[in-house]
Amino acid sequence: MVPDKSARVLDYEARLKAFMDTHIYPNEAEFFREAEELGPFAVYPMFDRLKPKAREAGLWNLFLPDSDKGAGLSNVEYGYLCEIMGRSFLAPEVFNCNAPDTGNMEVIERYGTEADKERWLKPLLNGEIRSCFAMTEPAVASSDATNIQAEIKRDGDHYVINAHKWYTTGASNPKTKICIFMGKTDPGNPDRHKQQSMILVPMDTPGITVTRSLPVFGYYGVPDRASEVLFDNVRVPAENLLLGEGRGFEIAQGRLGPGRIHHCMRTIGMAERLLETMIDRSLQRVAFGKPVADQGVTRERIAEARIMIDQCRLLTLHAAHKMDTVGNKEARAEIAMIKIAAPNMACQIADWAIQACGGGGTGNDFGTALAYAGLRTLRLADGPDEVHRDQLARMEIKKRKGLNHPGWEPHVTARGRNPGL
Amino acid sequence: MVPDKSARVLDYEARLKAFMDTHIYPNEAEFFREAEELGPFAVYPMFDRLKPKAREAGLWNLFLPDSDKGAGLSNVEYGYLCEIMGRSFLAPEVFNCNAPDTGNMEVIERYGTEADKERWLKPLLNGEIRSCFAMTEPAVASSDATNIQAEIKRDGDHYVINAHKWYTTGASNPKTKICIFMGKTDPGNPDRHKQQSMILVPMDTPGITVTRSLPVFGYYGVPDRASEVLFDNVRVPAENLLLGEGRGFEIAQGRLGPGRIHHCMRTIGMAERLLETMIDRSLQRVAFGKPVADQGVTRERIAEARIMIDQCRLLTLHAAHKMDTVGNKEARAEIAMIKIAAPNMACQIADWAIQACGGGGTGNDFGTALAYAGLRTLRLADGPDEVHRDQLARMEIKKRKGLNHPGWEPHVTARGRNPGL
Amino acid sequence: MVPDKSARVLDYEARLKAFMDTHIYPNEAEFFREAEELGPFAVYPMFDRLKPKAREAGLWNLFLPDSDKGAGLSNVEYGYLCEIMGRSFLAPEVFNCNAPDTGNMEVIERYGTEADKERWLKPLLNGEIRSCFAMTEPAVASSDATNIQAEIKRDGDHYVINAHKWYTTGASNPKTKICIFMGKTDPGNPDRHKQQSMILVPMDTPGITVTRSLPVFGYYGVPDRASEVLFDNVRVPAENLLLGEGRGFEIAQGRLGPGRIHHCMRTIGMAERLLETMIDRSLQRVAFGKPVADQGVTRERIAEARIMIDQCRLLTLHAAHKMDTVGNKEARAEIAMIKIAAPNMACQIADWAIQACGGGGTGNDFGTALAYAGLRTLRLADGPDEVHRDQLARMEIKKRKGLNHPGWEPHVTARGRNPGL
Amino acid sequence: MVPDKSARVLDYEARLKAFMDTHIYPNEAEFFREAEELGPFAVYPMFDRLKPKAREAGLWNLFLPDSDKGAGLSNVEYGYLCEIMGRSFLAPEVFNCNAPDTGNMEVIERYGTEADKERWLKPLLNGEIRSCFAMTEPAVASSDATNIQAEIKRDGDHYVINAHKWYTTGASNPKTKICIFMGKTDPGNPDRHKQQSMILVPMDTPGITVTRSLPVFGYYGVPDRASEVLFDNVRVPAENLLLGEGRGFEIAQGRLGPGRIHHCMRTIGMAERLLETMIDRSLQRVAFGKPVADQGVTRERIAEARIMIDQCRLLTLHAAHKMDTVGNKEARAEIAMIKIAAPNMACQIADWAIQACGGGGTGNDFGTALAYAGLRTLRLADGPDEVHRDQLARMEIKKRKGLNHPGWEPHVTARGRNPGL
Repeated sequence: MVPDKSARVLDYEARLKAFMDTHIYPNEAEFFREAEELGPFAVYPMFDRLKPKAREAGLWNLFLPDSDKGAGLSNVEYGYLCEIMGRSFLAPEVFNCNAPDTGNMEVIERYGTEADKERWLKPLLNGEIRSCFAMTEPAVASSDATNIQAEIKRDGDHYVINAHKWYTTGASNPKTKICIFMGKTDPGNPDRHKQQSMILVPMDTPGITVTRSLPVFGYYGVPDRASEVLFDNVRVPAENLLLGEGRGFEIAQGRLGPGRIHHCMRTIGMAERLLETMIDRSLQRVAFGKPVADQGVTRERIAEARIMIDQCRLLTLHAAHKMDTVGNKEARAEIAMIKIAAPNMACQIADWAIQACGGGGTGNDFGTALAYAGLRTLRLADGPDEVHRDQLARMEIKKRKGLNHPGWEPHVTARGRNPGL
Repeated sequence: MVPDKSARVLDYEARLKAFMDTHIYPNEAEFFREAEELGPFAVYPMFDRLKPKAREAGLWNLFLPDSDKGAGLSNVEYGYLCEIMGRSFLAPEVFNCNAPDTGNMEVIERYGTEADKERWLKPLLNGEIRSCFAMTEPAVASSDATNIQAEIKRDGDHYVINAHKWYTTGASNPKTKICIFMGKTDPGNPDRHKQQSMILVPMDTPGITVTRSLPVFGYYGVPDRASEVLFDNVRVPAENLLLGEGRGFEIAQGRLGPGRIHHCMRTIGMAERLLETMIDRSLQRVAFGKPVADQGVTRERIAEARIMIDQCRLLTLHAAHKMDTVGNKEARAEIAMIKIAAPNMACQIADWAIQACGGGGTGNDFGTALAYAGLRTLRLADGPDEVHRDQLARMEIKKRKGLNHPGWEPHVTARGRNPGL
Repeated sequence: MVPDKSARVLDYEARLKAFMDTHIYPNEAEFFREAEELGPFAVYPMFDRLKPKAREAGLWNLFLPDSDKGAGLSNVEYGYLCEIMGRSFLAPEVFNCNAPDTGNMEVIERYGTEADKERWLKPLLNGEIRSCFAMTEPAVASSDATNIQAEIKRDGDHYVINAHKWYTTGASNPKTKICIFMGKTDPGNPDRHKQQSMILVPMDTPGITVTRSLPVFGYYGVPDRASEVLFDNVRVPAENLLLGEGRGFEIAQGRLGPGRIHHCMRTIGMAERLLETMIDRSLQRVAFGKPVADQGVTRERIAEARIMIDQCRLLTLHAAHKMDTVGNKEARAEIAMIKIAAPNMACQIADWAIQACGGGGTGNDFGTALAYAGLRTLRLADGPDEVHRDQLARMEIKKRKGLNHPGWEPHVTARGRNPGL
Repeated sequence: MVPDKSARVLDYEARLKAFMDTHIYPNEAEFFREAEELGPFAVYPMFDRLKPKAREAGLWNLFLPDSDKGAGLSNVEYGYLCEIMGRSFLAPEVFNCNAPDTGNMEVIERYGTEADKERWLKPLLNGEIRSCFAMTEPAVASSDATNIQAEIKRDGDHYVINAHKWYTTGASNPKTKICIFMGKTDPGNPDRHKQQSMILVPMDTPGITVTRSLPVFGYYGVPDRASEVLFDNVRVPAENLLLGEGRGFEIAQGRLGPGRIHHCMRTIGMAERLLETMIDRSLQRVAFGKPVADQGVTRERIAEARIMIDQCRLLTLHAAHKMDTVGNKEARAEIAMIKIAAPNMACQIADWAIQACGGGGTGNDFGTALAYAGLRTLRLADGPDEVHRDQLARMEIKKRKGLNHPGWEPHVTARGRNPGL
């Protein structure tokens, strides 16, 4: 099954943990202040301070499976490390391992031209620029990709784009220079999964307006930079289209697998930190003569949290291993499972941690409220839980259709039998 | 049991609803903007615009059981109306019915001197000033009142106050002129519920510093103005002490009953609005070929939400009626029950509503995230759920102690009996 | 709202409680033994012993709203008393108030001929015979009445019945003399709710075979006598048809309202008894140095149980009152709500009670396992929860369709706004 | 991490599955009938029919880690196979792999004398006799071993035993010849874990009375043979004492580890079968125009069930692997986790499966009710969930005590800061 941590992973792990202790945790409060005070349309100086340190420490682009450019780690290997990064909202970008950049880099690596790679991938890998991914739209349930209304119309050797997008993470960041855009090139195609295409759109193209930053439970900028973006007759060269017309859905599917593993492993890291907070705070607080940690209800929750986290980590590593060994497509059910399980698990633990902190748990003194806000969005990002449960169930049901497996045979016992018959 | 809405309540209800439609709902977005842009230390002009209208409409101080100064409504009667106000975070203050002012006004009315009433109660009833209530402290679990560390020391004909308080709602409001302060005058008293006293502290007394506003998730100012306040050798005249030394716990108990009914009824109003949002949004959104409202999981939640709300409303009105008929003390168990039940119910419905709104549910386009944030704090305000469940359970257990009630008698049937005996 | 207990109800209540203490609780173990040893096709002598006592005590047919023949109580009044009877599986039949007889008596009273009343209603009211109700079928989801496959075919001045029914409660009881049978007289009717009819079928009619008794978990006979019944060319006179062809669905609807109230009130009584057991047992048991009742998790559950029971009782009485005042049809949503809420609530409390009893909770020494088994079937009787939630949700959704009610207006704050625009 | 199935395991697995298909599933109904009709004090002929076949097929004593006498499989290897056996209540004993015999055999193997092994272990390994384990007592919460009241008193070269035990699984089986008995040799020992001893007690020793069989939700004999046993001045030779006086707790601890893994793996097998039943039945049933399997609520549950099962299997295998690699003691937390997680998971899925089967789900036509009954007892066997959660939480809390790990630093943002300061 899932391989243990290799020597290489153990080495990275030790260095990552040390970096977290030295550079990440002590800088979180300052990072939140920057975000709060400079606002979601600003560059946060913290990244400029810490990214060079991370790069220098060799903790850079660990996500990249390509061993020339990145660490060349498998999904499982990276999963172990990703969990550590996930303990802080500050960490992933410091290590150049944050969403949606990692997914975008992989798309450009796989489907971009050499020119694209030179122009976009290189500075992304260097952490000089950032990118965004424009898929979700306010008017429709975007978890159903066939609902997408964005237009990508061919016009000579260009495409012209019109769309109203939101939850385009990162778009408000001045460093964001490139957008991977999902829209329909062929809305009338009877194969509803051939209607969509993906195209590279430089953010300085005329017609793009980042209209507003979207808060997450009142937070702007951190945990992320969800943004609303208008595309008004945005013209880009035809060669910016990735892979070919009608293949957007296909790219999206391929992009989501690793992305979800990363999200889930980070979520598990955050859940661990919340459990630590829950325990630490309940050791400190005394109510009615004993520490909250000695009270049965708290204990019950600590035990449940431990079980929930460990189960979810094992499932996530299992999914990662399946991707490593039989490919993303074959691991489809497992990826759906962790997409559902991890955020729900972590939201529950965040809720318990808030409760253990008392009133302060809802503010910014313990990080619990911000953690909840960030985790809560993951129950909706890339489609709400309900959609993924539905799809997972279809796969399960399909396996049973037409089977004639041993069920339970009815039996009539002496007690049930009518003695008069 | 609980009386139906009287003609008087029906009349108020119709007028309240009309006022909500005309003046409250259309002004919410603007009110949030004011709070966001002016910050939690500012006066929000919206109240100055709307309060005169509410007063003119005769929708003013409805909470006040005293029929000379207020509407003279019973807890049940006011409960029906309070639910309507609770549908909006803007509404309660517009009608001069917001926490903690209502509770504070009742305390001053009951225990204040004539001078106190002239100086504080009158402008509060007129909505000219606001008040705050300083009880919770950051260092201890304040749900256990015996944990309170705040000092109130007699010094000649004054008391000198030293304390570090937080979650002092309203303290950052420039209009807040008076604080009801809870601290210990006699920390060594062996009767742990006689250690505390309450005292009136004018907010302009030297030594008081409102150090910061505390966010609720990422929201400042609205849903409330939770604040951190330092009291550094604050001197107030001895006559400011309410009721007598060592009677703070007693006042707190009396204050909390109606306060909780009000909170719960408002919570029910908010839950209704969230259910409406959940339904409306799921009627609009189409995924995989049908409206989200036609999907089984959504329906399941809508049904559960309706059951949860109706059960909780009935329980809250039942508690209110018990207070009206046998007094707050006798209704202690019922008050604990709704304090636990209402916020949990509403948080669950808020969570479902967020899910029904998709990603937007976590932002400010549907009010769901702000509603969740506000409701979530109620599971901690006046003590976390766990404390109230513990106390309620003690009352239940006490009823059974020493009883010899018919349990179930073991029985050995033919099947269980050893045939060899 | 719901009227308080009238003097008459209080008097009945006191007498019922006394009877329970004297005759019901002390005889339960013996009653279970009878059921176990004589089997589900036998008469249990306990009823012959206790029914005369109940009748003599004037605690007889209390369910009957008709004041000539019964107590003439409203649904609310009877509800209060029904809860007490519900505390024991033995009690309802002793008071001639058990399902399905109460519902059947009401149907015959309302739709039967004078001859039917003389032949069936009179001995039922006297407790001399019992009756059954044949609706559910093994092959289909019977919660959807249009699925019913049972045939009722006109043949001259008779109807000929063919069907395979199960969960026909009471059919295995030798005292059961009459069956109210639901089948299709007009399976091709385009109005799917006009296909069904109800007809009276004497149990001694040739062609009826009670093939077996169905266990509830492993229990036979008690908590009920669920039975499988075959109808093979069963001929009954045409005048046995109730109300008219195609009106079976209509009768079923009318029959279910009071039946559900009764079931729910009994369920609440059983839940109270389970809570008592949970408390009593956890006062007796000591683990790790303190009584289980002093442990936080137990307390949490006791408090939740109290809240859940009280909420559900209020909702059930509220539904009963609505039936009393505006009729069963108008109370449709409320009846659906309690049908869902009560068994779920009670199953949860039964589960907690089992846990509090330790291993013994799953056996027959505490009554908890039998109680669970009985309550669990109520989540399926008259249709599974899921069907009722679905229907309740439709009613809720319908209320919102076409409405243009104030939702929440999106707002863009300074922080969200793009400063570059 | 956890090793994949080895070639040897794959071979066993294929043969086990074939045996289940050929001999187990088709014989379940008959097996239940035997148990029901012969009663819990009888031998069930089915075992005599099937055990020779299993032995002949080389599917015998697979549990035994000793490669001389058994299959010599690791916990992980056996875990994979144990899951398959767990799909049926009939299977484990057929393969000579049922509780409590497997645990008892390991105890005798490890701590018995050569004579004990010859007399008891050999016929147990041959499946000729059965054994029981007497620990739980009706009067106390036996999850706390220090509560045990059973006396084992030295008297010359004998021990004299007095006790009232129950939930002594298997005692009513005529084939049960030997009992491993837990009691106190030194009740006054200040080290409360040195008070207990274990001793071998032949079942034909005078003074032992199996007073009754204990039902499980009305079921006797199957799912197990829980029994009540009296020990009245039972004398056994002193050499029957295992390991030494005061070491009973130590043996119990060692015995429980593998026992729990086995229970959990079997539970997972049963959960899989319940999920299959839920899917199959909901494919067959049509309500309101579509199969129940197409309804959203069913799909939601199918998806959740799949996630829950897979998570729990991974956690159980992980615990087994930890036992295999670092020993039972180091795997203490993991063993506690699965002891809690597996039965709760499976009870939830059983509940959903019952609901999917409709009314019939509570009877014996689908196996769901019996499965629920059996699984429900596992939340209490070897101590209730609550006790294990409490112990797991203590281990978690201990890890954090004295640590000074990076929590979250409070931060005051511009918005929170008092502008007047």
